Amino acid sequence: MATTIAVLGAGSWGTVLANLLVENGHKVTLWTHHESQAVELMTTHYNQHYLPDFRLDDRLVVTSDLALALADAQVILFVVPTNAIRSVAESVVPLLAENQKPVIVHAAKGLEKQTELRVSQVLEAVIPADKRQGIVVISGPSHAEDVARRDITTLTAASTDVACAQAVQTLFMNDYFRLYTNTDVLGVEMGAALKNVIAIGAGALHGLGYGDNTKAALLTRGLAEITRLGVKMGADPMTFIGLSGVGDLIVTGTSVHSRNWRAGNALGQGEALPDVLENMGMVVEGVSTTKVAHELAAEQGVDMPITDAIYCVLYQNEPIRTVITDLMRRAGKPEFDFAQDSLQTDQKHV
Amino acid sequence: MATTIAVLGAGSWGTVLANLLVENGHKVTLWTHHESQAVELMTTHYNQHYLPDFRLDDRLVVTSDLALALADAQVILFVVPTNAIRSVAESVVPLLAENQKPVIVHAAKGLEKQTELRVSQVLEAVIPADKRQGIVVISGPSHAEDVARRDITTLTAASTDVACAQAVQTLFMNDYFRLYTNTDVLGVEMGAALKNVIAIGAGALHGLGYGDNTKAALLTRGLAEITRLGVKMGADPMTFIGLSGVGDLIVTGTSVHSRNWRAGNALGQGEALPDVLENMGMVVEGVSTTKVAHELAAEQGVDMPITDAIYCVLYQNEPIRTVITDLMRRAGKPEFDFAQDSLQTDQKHV
Repeated sequence: MATTIAVLGAGSWGTVLANLLVENGHKVTLWTHHESQAVELMTTHYNQHYLPDFRLDDRLVVTSDLALALADAQVILFVVPTNAIRSVAESVVPLLAENQKPVIVHAAKGLEKQTELRVSQVLEAVIPADKRQGIVVISGPSHAEDVARRDITTLTAASTDVACAQAVQTLFMNDYFRLYTNTDVLGVEMGAALKNVIAIGAGALHGLGYGDNTKAALLTRGLAEITRLGVKMGADPMTFIGLSGVGDLIVTGTSVHSRNWRAGNALGQGEALPDVLENMGMVVEGVSTTKVAHELAAEQGVDMPITDAIYCVLYQNEPIRTVITDLMRRAGKPEFDFAQDSLQTDQKHV
Repeated sequence: MATTIAVLGAGSWGTVLANLLVENGHKVTLWTHHESQAVELMTTHYNQHYLPDFRLDDRLVVTSDLALALADAQVILFVVPTNAIRSVAESVVPLLAENQKPVIVHAAKGLEKQTELRVSQVLEAVIPADKRQGIVVISGPSHAEDVARRDITTLTAASTDVACAQAVQTLFMNDYFRLYTNTDVLGVEMGAALKNVIAIGAGALHGLGYGDNTKAALLTRGLAEITRLGVKMGADPMTFIGLSGVGDLIVTGTSVHSRNWRAGNALGQGEALPDVLENMGMVVEGVSTTKVAHELAAEQGVDMPITDAIYCVLYQNEPIRTVITDLMRRAGKPEFDFAQDSLQTDQKHV
């Protein structure tokens, strides 16, 4: 049955998801805060800046009028950058009709800079409980460009409200787009956000000329420290070997399509951070997430050497070659985090 | 202090490791069962077939005389293919001197075809306890080619005998080669062996034309099923997010340098298995490991859909496109293995 869906944010990911939902038979309005972009997408059926080769479905409605986008929406999908989530959600609330109680979905991969909150926590705080159903996060290894060409793609749909997660799973599922439900929202959001930090590091190693062994070492040790922090905060460790954890880390940390990886690569090649960010022309979530992660690690007393190293490069002007080389040449020791964090479970000696 | 080391097996990995140990100041003899290869390496200082650009250290002794290689060896490092481990170990035993009690190390990544045993189990069974010290496995993301050019590389040195693991760590450690000790031998060996199966699948997806999202999905779901089997057999789940697990999976599953990946890629492009294996000119461990893993999964009652799919392609002549496409399009469901396997620990709600 057709569902009325508002997709907020017309970057590459929002555009592809909105179009996919149209093709799945839903009534979709894509909102962008740039009027000129709305006009462009509606008249040309292309999103020139983000996806120049991707022809949009004629049935996709695009508008810069938020009230219009939200009218009768049973589902609201937030695909704006993390640090815009709060202000967009605040704009949404007064526009919801008396009896409108939409399912809230988001696909943002970051942590709010000022508050260190996860995106679902921001949405929960801003949108009153009587104005919504459950909050669902969708996340996983998913370059928008690959979804645009209908490459088989798998995501996690995580919510503490299982029925809402299943409803979202059903909305999106088709021949090439597969969702798996999960209840560990904290683990999914932490994995999604923190992997961008590690991806900057992997890109930097590439830019510095290191090979596959070194990059795999960084990704592995990076996953270990992500898991350490997430578990300390209450996540299920197994979530980090799932789609939103290792899956997204592999895509983001090994692919030139990832803007976080590309930012790291440019830094590794000697570009200055302001130039890197200006040349990118898109939000690089990992840069602000690095700051939040660095602060969270200190607060939680969790050792995150890779995140700290990247923090030093991004926020303290330390030379990347020195920092990364020091990091990769630390003294030999036990694969200690696994030993420390080792999980004594019944399954261990089954 | 210089240690006398016998390295058995002069493929790319054995050659690079032997050379590294020489450079670390040890007295190393590299054994190959081909006399002509021993002569070539000793006279030209190149291993033309495996590493044509890698100049060997003049101090490296190469021989096809096993007794000579083993004389006074305090450490024996096995770097032969998995299915040759037993016969080589059987040849070693009678050649050991009365008081010789070497540390046994291996770097093989497979499971013995006939017995389903891990390599350390084969070595333990063949070499009497009074003829050796502990058995250590070294494993991790490590293309020989990258180590040859001194790229920073990290491995796990796993043993139930911590002192032996630490001794091996010390032998190998240098500026670019880093080892981390671990006591979960079973987890390390299972991860190392089973990731080759998944790498064949990742290569096949590439050969079939799929993109990064799909390959990341396969690697992630592959890691999940590797972990399921390993944990069922008694491994620590955290080992699988370590260097011998996800680390090696990333390198093997995303790199054209991996022979397992290359074999899968050729299958995906439509080549027949016998041609693939003949063209490779090296042992593709993943092919026989697939058979063992398929049998172990059945015995242990563990669901391993990716391994089973690859088994059907390799051993039952099923068309790869059908099998892989079916696999990637299974019905939507919970990210269930994580839910099922979810670890209820004290850490979960810290």
